[in-house]
Amino acid sequence: QGILERLDAGEIVIGDGGFVIALEKRGYVKAGPWTPEATVEHPEAVRQLHREFLRAGSNVLQTFTFYASEDKLENRGNYVAEKISCQKVNEAACDIAREVANEGDALVAGGVSQTPSYLSCKDKTEVKAAFRKQLEVFMKKNVDFLIAEYFEHVEEAVWAVEVLKESGKPVAATMCIGPEGDMHGVSPGQCAVQLVKAGASIVGVNCHFDPETSVETVRLMKEGLQAAKLKAHLMCQPLAFHTPDCGKQGFIDLPEFPFALEPRIATRWDIQKYARKAYDVGIRFIGGCCGFEPYHIRAIAEELAPERGFLPEASEKHGNWGDNLSMHTKPWVRARARKEYWENLKPASGRPYCPCMSKPDGWGVTKGAKELMQQKEATTEQQLKELFQKKK
Amino acid sequence: QGILERLDAGEIVIGDGGFVIALEKRGYVKAGPWTPEATVEHPEAVRQLHREFLRAGSNVLQTFTFYASEDKLENRGNYVAEKISCQKVNEAACDIAREVANEGDALVAGGVSQTPSYLSCKDKTEVKAAFRKQLEVFMKKNVDFLIAEYFEHVEEAVWAVEVLKESGKPVAATMCIGPEGDMHGVSPGQCAVQLVKAGASIVGVNCHFDPETSVETVRLMKEGLQAAKLKAHLMCQPLAFHTPDCGKQGFIDLPEFPFALEPRIATRWDIQKYARKAYDVGIRFIGGCCGFEPYHIRAIAEELAPERGFLPEASEKHGNWGDNLSMHTKPWVRARARKEYWENLKPASGRPYCPCMSKPDGWGVTKGAKELMQQKEATTEQQLKELFQKKK
Amino acid sequence: QGILERLDAGEIVIGDGGFVIALEKRGYVKAGPWTPEATVEHPEAVRQLHREFLRAGSNVLQTFTFYASEDKLENRGNYVAEKISCQKVNEAACDIAREVANEGDALVAGGVSQTPSYLSCKDKTEVKAAFRKQLEVFMKKNVDFLIAEYFEHVEEAVWAVEVLKESGKPVAATMCIGPEGDMHGVSPGQCAVQLVKAGASIVGVNCHFDPETSVETVRLMKEGLQAAKLKAHLMCQPLAFHTPDCGKQGFIDLPEFPFALEPRIATRWDIQKYARKAYDVGIRFIGGCCGFEPYHIRAIAEELAPERGFLPEASEKHGNWGDNLSMHTKPWVRARARKEYWENLKPASGRPYCPCMSKPDGWGVTKGAKELMQQKEATTEQQLKELFQKKK
Amino acid sequence: QGILERLDAGEIVIGDGGFVIALEKRGYVKAGPWTPEATVEHPEAVRQLHREFLRAGSNVLQTFTFYASEDKLENRGNYVAEKISCQKVNEAACDIAREVANEGDALVAGGVSQTPSYLSCKDKTEVKAAFRKQLEVFMKKNVDFLIAEYFEHVEEAVWAVEVLKESGKPVAATMCIGPEGDMHGVSPGQCAVQLVKAGASIVGVNCHFDPETSVETVRLMKEGLQAAKLKAHLMCQPLAFHTPDCGKQGFIDLPEFPFALEPRIATRWDIQKYARKAYDVGIRFIGGCCGFEPYHIRAIAEELAPERGFLPEASEKHGNWGDNLSMHTKPWVRARARKEYWENLKPASGRPYCPCMSKPDGWGVTKGAKELMQQKEATTEQQLKELFQKKK
Repeated sequence: QGILERLDAGEIVIGDGGFVIALEKRGYVKAGPWTPEATVEHPEAVRQLHREFLRAGSNVLQTFTFYASEDKLENRGNYVAEKISCQKVNEAACDIAREVANEGDALVAGGVSQTPSYLSCKDKTEVKAAFRKQLEVFMKKNVDFLIAEYFEHVEEAVWAVEVLKESGKPVAATMCIGPEGDMHGVSPGQCAVQLVKAGASIVGVNCHFDPETSVETVRLMKEGLQAAKLKAHLMCQPLAFHTPDCGKQGFIDLPEFPFALEPRIATRWDIQKYARKAYDVGIRFIGGCCGFEPYHIRAIAEELAPERGFLPEASEKHGNWGDNLSMHTKPWVRARARKEYWENLKPASGRPYCPCMSKPDGWGVTKGAKELMQQKEATTEQQLKELFQKKK
Repeated sequence: QGILERLDAGEIVIGDGGFVIALEKRGYVKAGPWTPEATVEHPEAVRQLHREFLRAGSNVLQTFTFYASEDKLENRGNYVAEKISCQKVNEAACDIAREVANEGDALVAGGVSQTPSYLSCKDKTEVKAAFRKQLEVFMKKNVDFLIAEYFEHVEEAVWAVEVLKESGKPVAATMCIGPEGDMHGVSPGQCAVQLVKAGASIVGVNCHFDPETSVETVRLMKEGLQAAKLKAHLMCQPLAFHTPDCGKQGFIDLPEFPFALEPRIATRWDIQKYARKAYDVGIRFIGGCCGFEPYHIRAIAEELAPERGFLPEASEKHGNWGDNLSMHTKPWVRARARKEYWENLKPASGRPYCPCMSKPDGWGVTKGAKELMQQKEATTEQQLKELFQKKK
Repeated sequence: QGILERLDAGEIVIGDGGFVIALEKRGYVKAGPWTPEATVEHPEAVRQLHREFLRAGSNVLQTFTFYASEDKLENRGNYVAEKISCQKVNEAACDIAREVANEGDALVAGGVSQTPSYLSCKDKTEVKAAFRKQLEVFMKKNVDFLIAEYFEHVEEAVWAVEVLKESGKPVAATMCIGPEGDMHGVSPGQCAVQLVKAGASIVGVNCHFDPETSVETVRLMKEGLQAAKLKAHLMCQPLAFHTPDCGKQGFIDLPEFPFALEPRIATRWDIQKYARKAYDVGIRFIGGCCGFEPYHIRAIAEELAPERGFLPEASEKHGNWGDNLSMHTKPWVRARARKEYWENLKPASGRPYCPCMSKPDGWGVTKGAKELMQQKEATTEQQLKELFQKKK
Repeated sequence: QGILERLDAGEIVIGDGGFVIALEKRGYVKAGPWTPEATVEHPEAVRQLHREFLRAGSNVLQTFTFYASEDKLENRGNYVAEKISCQKVNEAACDIAREVANEGDALVAGGVSQTPSYLSCKDKTEVKAAFRKQLEVFMKKNVDFLIAEYFEHVEEAVWAVEVLKESGKPVAATMCIGPEGDMHGVSPGQCAVQLVKAGASIVGVNCHFDPETSVETVRLMKEGLQAAKLKAHLMCQPLAFHTPDCGKQGFIDLPEFPFALEPRIATRWDIQKYARKAYDVGIRFIGGCCGFEPYHIRAIAEELAPERGFLPEASEKHGNWGDNLSMHTKPWVRARARKEYWENLKPASGRPYCPCMSKPDGWGVTKGAKELMQQKEATTEQQLKELFQKKK
């Protein structure tokens, strides 16, 4: 059954987790460029991560094609081995995802994300060409549906949806925005409306914000769609990091990004709360993005097991709310084998010299990244730094 | 070259990280029993984790045989498929470790750990028999050396070393203790002396405490050996969790164990500091235990690259102190591409409703686990609970 | 010179601090009722606190007549000695304030605050009668001007201003609201407009929120007045507690109120920042409310000394930004004798088992207290409790 | 009845709180020098603070003669008006304390503290002369007993006790040390033994450490006395600040000292716990030092009211465990009117950008202040700074 059949039937569809952060920790992705050449260089590592998500309950395996547009790969050329073409990266990603999907009953979704071409103010034709290039691979490899994800500007997201719609396959679109909307100030509700009008059947958000903020943003999208009398399925793939302190541009601006986010990592119980909240808001495509490890995806599947009627395979290695601790030799550890315990625990950081919140870096302005890049082109590095200092 | 040749020559040997915690998150190990039947059930997952550690710089791959003694596997029998024998688990662990070790130049170490037999007060002969059973597999599979690890009582650790020494292979021994010593009150220095006298060539600690505490414990072991005019190589494989608040029995007693330790996870920079500190104390076998992911091991290898003269393979995907951020589009993210930044950052928890430290659970007494089990045998479950309440 | 002459001339006028919290700690006021019978029972304690504020730089001494309306004193009758009449409390308050004001050149302001009569839905005539009774004392004792303060509903504040205006003396009016406005949902800007139209020459906020929030609320009032083309002087008397986590009804709803607010107490440096910010926003009547001790008022006077050209008397016992530490015997304490040090210090709580923020109690609804009391009259105590539980 | 009669009869004697910190906040004492010239300059302020402590339950009023030795006052000469002699300061302190003590049934204790003469290595004769000069005033004014307090070196404390004993009056002696002992490394137990042998009838600690640490230090003193088969009454007057992070020299070395200690201030409930703990350890002279405000002293009196059979006067303005909140209009505030609530509350700091603990400044060495001053005399200011930097 296809993605829309499942969602139309009222099924809960569980997404997968974040590849770039997980594979960075495993040693296969470089932070900064965040490009997915590992599909060619180390397919076994990508395959294993897909498999873990599948086992954890994912119904959708996204091709590991984040930032795999040609302009991005070239832009980060010094990181990617010269001989690995954009096409190869995308093809390998499709092959691996399909191979693992076939081990279960998961769908394969081909994914595109925002492009340097847009940020450097290339025109619509050129930007669309970048998406089309990836789409050709997805069509050749016959993915099940398509996702346009991680867009900060709805304008570019709409262009992506328009290209993906040419395929005739179902299209989902998620933006990396919070309740304040996109980088040009378009509200979540308006973003949703534009994306649905452009052809997306599923809309929502991914990345940049913590689960609570992301669910709230999707709720605002839902309100916008209702006000416009439009219908679409809702989707949410947030961070598995606590980010109550981040500003409009999300976790990128937090001083801890990307190498000191550890204290912010969500527990499995945090994720169970997220899954329940997302469900209650009416979201039915529920997954994760950066920070989501396989056990976080399993937590979604376990929280919603009563609604779905089954547990994922990996739950053979996980007790309900910690009940596998009931055999521990220490009575006080056995006492942790219950829902009330984990639900109410306020976990300590173990870092008494560190604060609880940070002030985000950045200019504190709500300019779009596109405009920032325009400024950048207009100035030298030194001038940019001075500008930054002055604005700060 | 063997482990002792390397250490005798003054080389730094890098250990690997924690299998049970990492594979629990990946969906292959059950928290509570913590047994390694995944070597038979899901060898590809175990293989991949070994490979990631190898790539990150590990010079030693430990067989995934933690808690793989027959008595332990039986004790946790309801978790382990009946058909998977102790022998099979240990053999598969050896095969996988060797296969991956051959992809690089790593050594394979066969590992044994504390047994339920000891805790339930079986006699020396019986406990030794459990170790001998695992040793037979290690000899058959011809591992390069042996590690007796995760012992809370030096008495049992000595018995393990005595058995392992029968093989003629080099033996390392690490206890899961802190500066207060073992569960019967034997000081770290005295533990080290007993282990070396029993035949261990390498001594130290693993698990239960954070890096800082563990290095301090090994330093005390070193002092004990010096006072006794004994010589041995030093080894340290701590947690990658911050545990300034734990008591004598380590992180098991923290309320967050094992399902809410996330906020305590060490950053790569924390681990670089640990590696330097361990090196300065004279430790030359430097690795990790629970919480150590591949990128933590890489952090050890990168910190000590000046001394060693080379970087691990996975550093192709990692800039020195974040220098791969220097191409980021945002100037304030580019400003993070330097050592001073990450070295001095106090990372926020993102959890303003949570505390920084917890009070450990437990009786707050320093009885050995063995004695606790004796008490347990003498009382019903109900009585134990009442005892616990009363003591609390 | 009167209050308006001073403000019209562009002078900065410094208010005083919080009497009920300070005198509760000194042992003369009962938390809960918060009534000021100490003016009769222990005049020396009230006099001494006035004197300390005067010495710290206060240009205005408010009569200690908070909650001294007849209906309030009766309502709390079991706390107040039967023989102490409303008139006596108010007269003694005026006498003490005038006595101390004459020791310097401070003005005496007679103050009224919100009444139980309003909350229990008495009509305008009755509520106004309560204010008029206090006003008669203020006229007899010839205070210099009048302040209507601590109003949660602008409707009642307007009634108070109307009564006070009958005197012909200048009237200031401050509400205990935040940026979300009064308990009936009237915005700060609209509140300010109504108060000025009713006759207030000075408007602003006092109590309930921390300095940062309060300055922001007054800024919104300023915007409202500008939009309505009205003119008034601005006034701010916030808490000296950090309350980033409080909801619409302010610090009353925080779990720490009123007996565990200590960790939230502002430092003198926090208050210097507040004074500067208030000044920059255009506020010229700058004082404090609950939590403000004499040294906090001195901090306002010291921060604004460059603009005013003089220091308060109590600065003879206080160095500029800690410069009196420059003679300390320890070099590291001497190193604290400078502005940069104190300005940038992030003070530790010394409480590693406590969180940084709390969830406010309460129904989370934005009903006015008046409406809550209406409900209360309609229900028994027990029913109210059940209602609370249900809403919670 | 004298102090010894009371203690010998098993009575609990409640001390008073900290004058220098409280009067600094009220505007009468200068941080840094911390000298008590306010007894002459502003007797009404000193009198009022004494009165508040008396009302709160203090059975002993200490003359405000801290740092009032002649050498100290001269040393800080630029702060103290030239015409205020050491004798005048001490005489005024005695007169004020006696005046207020007569308002109740409190005892007056004349107090001496450590001297610059000792720190600058003057000999025993000279140091004793400084104490004797103050003692002469105490005898002339006929105080009820004597306290030698705030000594970092037991050697000097012993000299002080020897001088005070010449008077024939009972002598108490408290050192400002923690469990690690005095600045020359003398353990608490040994300090107690020396002080009792020198003639002290009451021994203990004051200042520098939080209540928990201080009670533990007095417990160690008790053990030392028991081991030496000596008898003395025990006394404890700790900080009302949480200082889990301070080193051997106490809160002086914390970065927040003295102008940003606010987040560390103890609640009344913290102090009730302290009073109970002190009582349980066998301490019967229970008071406070820096940070103790009148309501903290009241908390001691209220906690121990069951044992003593009466409440202090100021309890007329304080409900038992918050029961005066039971009439509050908001049901959730009424819900705070009970012991369980306040006992278990973990109060939030309201400061999410601040840490919970600080690293103490200082050389981290355990040299005595005396030795540091010797070094200082031997070096220029510049050399000292360099030394500090180097050691740091």
